[in-house]
Amino acid sequence: MPAKLAANRYGKSKVRLMRVTKHEDHHDLDEWTVQILLSGDFETAHTLGDNSKILPTDTMKNTVYSLARDSKATSMEDYAKELVDFLLGRNPQVTEAEVVIESTLWKRLTVDGKPFPTAFMRGSDEVQTTTVSRAQGAGFEIISGLDNLTVLKSANSGFVGYIKDELTTLPETTDRIFATALKATWEYTADAIAAGIDFDKVRGHLRETMIAAFAKHDSLSVQQTLYAMAEAALEHTDIIDEVYMRMPNKHCLLVNLAPFGQRNPNHIFVPTDEPHGTIEATIRRA
Amino acid sequence: MPAKLAANRYGKSKVRLMRVTKHEDHHDLDEWTVQILLSGDFETAHTLGDNSKILPTDTMKNTVYSLARDSKATSMEDYAKELVDFLLGRNPQVTEAEVVIESTLWKRLTVDGKPFPTAFMRGSDEVQTTTVSRAQGAGFEIISGLDNLTVLKSANSGFVGYIKDELTTLPETTDRIFATALKATWEYTADAIAAGIDFDKVRGHLRETMIAAFAKHDSLSVQQTLYAMAEAALEHTDIIDEVYMRMPNKHCLLVNLAPFGQRNPNHIFVPTDEPHGTIEATIRRA
Amino acid sequence: MPAKLAANRYGKSKVRLMRVTKHEDHHDLDEWTVQILLSGDFETAHTLGDNSKILPTDTMKNTVYSLARDSKATSMEDYAKELVDFLLGRNPQVTEAEVVIESTLWKRLTVDGKPFPTAFMRGSDEVQTTTVSRAQGAGFEIISGLDNLTVLKSANSGFVGYIKDELTTLPETTDRIFATALKATWEYTADAIAAGIDFDKVRGHLRETMIAAFAKHDSLSVQQTLYAMAEAALEHTDIIDEVYMRMPNKHCLLVNLAPFGQRNPNHIFVPTDEPHGTIEATIRRA
Amino acid sequence: MPAKLAANRYGKSKVRLMRVTKHEDHHDLDEWTVQILLSGDFETAHTLGDNSKILPTDTMKNTVYSLARDSKATSMEDYAKELVDFLLGRNPQVTEAEVVIESTLWKRLTVDGKPFPTAFMRGSDEVQTTTVSRAQGAGFEIISGLDNLTVLKSANSGFVGYIKDELTTLPETTDRIFATALKATWEYTADAIAAGIDFDKVRGHLRETMIAAFAKHDSLSVQQTLYAMAEAALEHTDIIDEVYMRMPNKHCLLVNLAPFGQRNPNHIFVPTDEPHGTIEATIRRA
Repeated sequence: MPAKLAANRYGKSKVRLMRVTKHEDHHDLDEWTVQILLSGDFETAHTLGDNSKILPTDTMKNTVYSLARDSKATSMEDYAKELVDFLLGRNPQVTEAEVVIESTLWKRLTVDGKPFPTAFMRGSDEVQTTTVSRAQGAGFEIISGLDNLTVLKSANSGFVGYIKDELTTLPETTDRIFATALKATWEYTADAIAAGIDFDKVRGHLRETMIAAFAKHDSLSVQQTLYAMAEAALEHTDIIDEVYMRMPNKHCLLVNLAPFGQRNPNHIFVPTDEPHGTIEATIRRA
Repeated sequence: MPAKLAANRYGKSKVRLMRVTKHEDHHDLDEWTVQILLSGDFETAHTLGDNSKILPTDTMKNTVYSLARDSKATSMEDYAKELVDFLLGRNPQVTEAEVVIESTLWKRLTVDGKPFPTAFMRGSDEVQTTTVSRAQGAGFEIISGLDNLTVLKSANSGFVGYIKDELTTLPETTDRIFATALKATWEYTADAIAAGIDFDKVRGHLRETMIAAFAKHDSLSVQQTLYAMAEAALEHTDIIDEVYMRMPNKHCLLVNLAPFGQRNPNHIFVPTDEPHGTIEATIRRA
Repeated sequence: MPAKLAANRYGKSKVRLMRVTKHEDHHDLDEWTVQILLSGDFETAHTLGDNSKILPTDTMKNTVYSLARDSKATSMEDYAKELVDFLLGRNPQVTEAEVVIESTLWKRLTVDGKPFPTAFMRGSDEVQTTTVSRAQGAGFEIISGLDNLTVLKSANSGFVGYIKDELTTLPETTDRIFATALKATWEYTADAIAAGIDFDKVRGHLRETMIAAFAKHDSLSVQQTLYAMAEAALEHTDIIDEVYMRMPNKHCLLVNLAPFGQRNPNHIFVPTDEPHGTIEATIRRA
Repeated sequence: MPAKLAANRYGKSKVRLMRVTKHEDHHDLDEWTVQILLSGDFETAHTLGDNSKILPTDTMKNTVYSLARDSKATSMEDYAKELVDFLLGRNPQVTEAEVVIESTLWKRLTVDGKPFPTAFMRGSDEVQTTTVSRAQGAGFEIISGLDNLTVLKSANSGFVGYIKDELTTLPETTDRIFATALKATWEYTADAIAAGIDFDKVRGHLRETMIAAFAKHDSLSVQQTLYAMAEAALEHTDIIDEVYMRMPNKHCLLVNLAPFGQRNPNHIFVPTDEPHGTIEATIRRA
């Protein structure tokens, strides 16, 4: 039939990896969920069922564990780079390899007021993320970020001056709850990657910078706060040139207590999951 | 600061709508989850908190319900077109509007062997989808599809002839379970949109065509079956020129009963959710 | 310390099993999720860490698969009985064994208008359930049922005549949507178990009976419809004496279109997940 | 028909409440999910559709918000007591009222090294729980606890000396990862309730006590550690006499790297969700 294969890729998703690193007097714990996706010369696999150029996804899974065993990388970005190069180096039929890692939060337990060396507690559903990709013969592209960082401010947020028409029912307010589950990604510049990056340190600082901007901002809209947070990130370091942010507006609705003869001075709310506002933007260094 | 706004959009997500259409002797039921996203001239909203060009997402939600009340559309594509044009027409500051709808499966109940006129049962988690978008002054783009259609074949599936190396542990097999949760999307041609489309009828036929190809295919790999399904879809109708498909390989592992002195001739399996293979491709009319 | 062990039990949960039964001209498919829980003499396991009477939960998992391989049972109840007796027979330290099975819906695919012998599609999230338990030396207790059967009626449902006070805001209605996700369980009588039961046949008939009662009922409240459904089940067969039902009231709210100058004659609704009414009752043969 | 109503109750579930308490220089934030269940004289509601004794679940929802507005309670237990008494006092047809509350974790944001007065971050999926119930004319029963507290210890955990048979494949180990998602509940004594309890303070101490016992325990089995944790809780305070605990064994499997010529000295694991061990017990003061 007159059909042809256009874009295509394949790989393994949700490869879960837990790594316990044993130091003399304490253990460290990492939990990563890894995805590998390969693009390349897979035309006949699709059209003829010829698997001779197919690296099985089961082997990719084995590769995740085997490389993790020998790796000295402490950051997931550095480990992802090893994985990408291992796959490219052994598979000339692959034109580009992409590794996506999500890191799950674990915190060391505090016992009797002190950090306990070998026990941990799950943190929130926030995940730290990275996407490391490389084409054969080209440089790395590294986009790191975080997702599902749920934050809320109960002051310094309003929303006024918007378009009103006959379908408007939303009242203006200068005092509302602003809750969101932030997704942010930033791409490292080629120069920075070439020079070498302390990924965990940068990640921690960028996260702190964005959280501080969120808390302090005198918010006239989600858009304006999103922009301020991205701007703060770009100001913090010049090894990134662009930030993407998505901030759903997770509405907390003021309960109408008037039918019961009660006032409700921004005291009692209903948090809701749906519907929610969706605001997303990419902010670039000018 | 030397930052600037690049791509950005905003809107309302997860607006849930249930529509009961009352005919003389029976009711029809639709459940749609609607998302609206607008792009446009929102620079000062981000940089200055100027909301004068912002249509509140709460008003978008109201628009979904108000238009649904008056709409005569039976397909979600036709309703989405109305919604897009309503938003574009009243908001010159908007350069492009996109409406995404997911439809939930409900089936009429059978009682005493006959369809019951006013009672329904939820179907599977498969969703029917459409994305309808339009820029001011341009034509519609309509990409419809389905997601999470979970199917399984217990015969005519094998996987042999792939790359083997020292990280290979997967044995070759000519008889395995092939289970997937299909996502497929197809874009209607501009000519077909201009001529008018019976969206529900086309959707039903394409779905049936792909399912039949899945069941009948003598599968040498997920890739090959995916390609055959897309090819069948393109053969079925010329009002689409391109099909995107994603087919995770939801592994059902043969249980090793040898330690207990038992053979397991493809009889007892463990279905697993993670890790899973991910295979995706776009197939175009040549 | 002056503490003592009271009730306790342990076992394995979420053991997933897929069984392909190969007939000459077609395959059958079962997907079951099994849980085993054992009670018994496990005092010193808790107080001393003495594992000498502990059957590892990993071995329970192996038992699920090994027995399934040799079992001739077609219903999950009959398979659960085998599992219970196997565990009781080999473990005198166990005083009672309980096996819970949930069955996932798969339907045979229809291709070219005919059932396809070796391909299947996932059904809804409804699960069929059974809990089979037995104490050493006693008879079986078998409680079967279903869960998450989501049904909706768009006619013949109202709610009036309830208590009104100063906290009431709900308007009376003689025409509303009634949607629920039914959980029902029924216990087989000891006589019926002794005589032998065709579990799948009874299950199918009870399910159909309850669904028909739901569709046909002229509902004055969720409570009344629940009772009518249970009554119909008890009338259907005397091998059960008691039915438990839980029917959350999954509210579909009528959208208020009055602010937009539109009437809404039970046409446009918002389906919601939270909050929801919860109604549960046990109905016994008098 | 010869059927009769046995146990029955009804109410409202998943009533979500967010409370912002505004102090001079900072805000406090509570997020509670409330369920109300009433038992009583509801026979004719079921058999006749007579709603004259039915308090609508919609009114229960209103009651949650209206009482929260006026309540001075800081703990969810004290608020639940108010709710129970309000419902019992106004509804003589109700014989028993039960209120269940789950509290979501929010933590104050730290900005520039200091707690920020009006911004918060979601914590983990751990929930704090209470069930407060009362029959007309009787005293309160209060069972508090926590659920989904996910902890892991990477040292001092083994499992040996268990039953071996021909279905055993689990190797003994003196060094394994022990991960669980703890559910614990404790019932306050009637004397303590009468004397008055600082619920939040007790809850915090019991939680800390159980976590410390988990971290420090030299574990020979999940059962033994569970018992030690419950024992520590009972030792901590005499205002509880009984602790129920459920500790799923969330297996982290050591990856077999031998096929790749690598050793794996408890370094690289696969965390899994299914199947999992289930261990539960009630420990009482002797």
